[in-house]
Amino acid sequence: MENDFQFYLPTRLIQGPNCLIKHSHYLKRLGKKALIVTGVNSSKLNGSLDDVITALEKENIRYKIFDGIDDNPTIELIQQAFNENEREGISFIVGLGKGSPIDAAKAIGVLFRHRGISAREAFNMKNLRSIPIVAVPTTAGTGSEVTPYSIVTDHQLRTKKDFGQESFPKLAYLDPRYIYTADFNSILHNAFDAFSHLVEGYLNVNANLMTDIIAEKGLALFGELKEAFIRKSLSPDQIDQLLMASTMGGMVISQTGTSLPHALGYVLTYEKKIPHGFATAAIFKGYLGLYSDEAKLSRMLSILGFASTAELMAYIDRIVDYRLDLTEDEIRVYTRNMLNNQGKLTNHPDRVSRNQIADMYQKAVKK
Amino acid sequence: MENDFQFYLPTRLIQGPNCLIKHSHYLKRLGKKALIVTGVNSSKLNGSLDDVITALEKENIRYKIFDGIDDNPTIELIQQAFNENEREGISFIVGLGKGSPIDAAKAIGVLFRHRGISAREAFNMKNLRSIPIVAVPTTAGTGSEVTPYSIVTDHQLRTKKDFGQESFPKLAYLDPRYIYTADFNSILHNAFDAFSHLVEGYLNVNANLMTDIIAEKGLALFGELKEAFIRKSLSPDQIDQLLMASTMGGMVISQTGTSLPHALGYVLTYEKKIPHGFATAAIFKGYLGLYSDEAKLSRMLSILGFASTAELMAYIDRIVDYRLDLTEDEIRVYTRNMLNNQGKLTNHPDRVSRNQIADMYQKAVKK
Repeated sequence: MENDFQFYLPTRLIQGPNCLIKHSHYLKRLGKKALIVTGVNSSKLNGSLDDVITALEKENIRYKIFDGIDDNPTIELIQQAFNENEREGISFIVGLGKGSPIDAAKAIGVLFRHRGISAREAFNMKNLRSIPIVAVPTTAGTGSEVTPYSIVTDHQLRTKKDFGQESFPKLAYLDPRYIYTADFNSILHNAFDAFSHLVEGYLNVNANLMTDIIAEKGLALFGELKEAFIRKSLSPDQIDQLLMASTMGGMVISQTGTSLPHALGYVLTYEKKIPHGFATAAIFKGYLGLYSDEAKLSRMLSILGFASTAELMAYIDRIVDYRLDLTEDEIRVYTRNMLNNQGKLTNHPDRVSRNQIADMYQKAVKK
Repeated sequence: MENDFQFYLPTRLIQGPNCLIKHSHYLKRLGKKALIVTGVNSSKLNGSLDDVITALEKENIRYKIFDGIDDNPTIELIQQAFNENEREGISFIVGLGKGSPIDAAKAIGVLFRHRGISAREAFNMKNLRSIPIVAVPTTAGTGSEVTPYSIVTDHQLRTKKDFGQESFPKLAYLDPRYIYTADFNSILHNAFDAFSHLVEGYLNVNANLMTDIIAEKGLALFGELKEAFIRKSLSPDQIDQLLMASTMGGMVISQTGTSLPHALGYVLTYEKKIPHGFATAAIFKGYLGLYSDEAKLSRMLSILGFASTAELMAYIDRIVDYRLDLTEDEIRVYTRNMLNNQGKLTNHPDRVSRNQIADMYQKAVKK
């Protein structure tokens, strides 16, 4: 038996169509006024903002809306969301939308809890806490609804980075209806974010008995969707399944952290504007060949329904649609930055060399 | 995909040899003085009480000990444990031992949180809370370290019953070393408690995607131990595995609740002094035949490594060692009491008739 592990997932998961309205009573315990943190458009179009407002009103909870969070929120935007609402008597935050508003909600929640600390200061501190966060994802990918992480963009460091506090949402409402109307390309790159969480959590030094059973189920659910991704069409049932796989990916990385594809991929999103899920998928080509536990790798391939790593790579190459050119100079700079940040490489079981990092970037090129 | 489910398991699991000492820092957050609730002997003999004290002292936490909780604690004993310590400035409780001290700790914690409410009154109220509970199991069976339940004995009702408040432990320290010295018979009847949690949670109307993957892993771990139970000898590795299966059983019933064997078995423990795990196993003979989802039942048998229900029943009959005689009058009374308590029967997917209940008791007889 595997010994010495921990498992901690304090978020209450509430899953199913109309779950916000059906189970709004949990919101009541969190306080009398909410700040809804969301993006400019999508939560208005997919019906999720209406549901959040209906659920809050049903429980006699007042609310304010900050709808300025789209992709890759910055430290400055997090500060602004707090500044605009600091005197509103906010007792909890609803992060509504893609991963970004949920991640931003967690960081904003820290500023409400620790008055007087700026977002920039909090970013460099440890063990801060947040006021309660409610996560309502409207994509299937980030898993942010069940993780303590808050990924923010830092223009000073020219990359994306974890805000660094442990902010598990208190509640996660998972309603697949919000994803039914999403366009296929957005479903696909989010799906690859979920996929990379499952794989990076499974092939991770921190993997344990509990994370493995969750990862294996998530990988099995993802594997069943392979053909649907090729056909570029998912039924509502398949979207339900993808949302569950995505949440399982979040559960896994909430315990294990991510691994090389996330570590190396962030800069491709920051500098080259490759969607996050595709940026991690791009790194996979070099990454899987580096993983030395053959037995675990084959178990993963078998659960996914691939005969070999090559077959998985060919599949990713076929359906992940991006263009990326990297000069030798760029690869040298990205590689050096990675080597200067060894902490990001420690979840991979083996030591990773300069050449191996450069090779992963080289293999990510797709013209 | 299955929709409409919830999953909530806020307990932080910390697993591995010496985990209390290695990870004592979590205790610090819970306050400055602990009440250790334990039994008279076993926690002194197996080293667990020493570990708890060392961990508390390491974190400069003061403590009091209440060591009066052995099997099947009563409402009166819970009241007494509170009364003796109510002016001690206790901020959290460590439940240490078999299921009973952990269950008692949860109930005592409610009295500390809601001063002025008696144990008898709390037993009839809903939605009370507890001061923080730390669970340190020294048997592999009840799973109480990861459930919100607190099973207490009520001599007025002449049975065991849930205290009725939702008290998940904050922390569960799982150190298999405490079980290495236990005698085989006690390991066995606790193992059947864990087994019945896995089965009753798996064959349960509240089972869902998350509980099923946990139950299936727990059943697989249990299935691998079949031969060791026949040989009446478990290696340390096998005890580690049993403890994990037991905790998984707790995780499952924390979401699903238990089913018919627990509902019908409690009275056999109260009136006939059959150990709890054997009392539920006794009911299994009649129970499994009532379960109508053949596909799920066969999946369970296949995970356990049995060819048929009959083979599983023969196995239980072979290794579960108890004697039980029931008169027709006793069966009539137990059956009537069950029928008057329909709430206990609703986790089973089908309606259960008077004859079916009487038949389960009849089949439990073993002379």
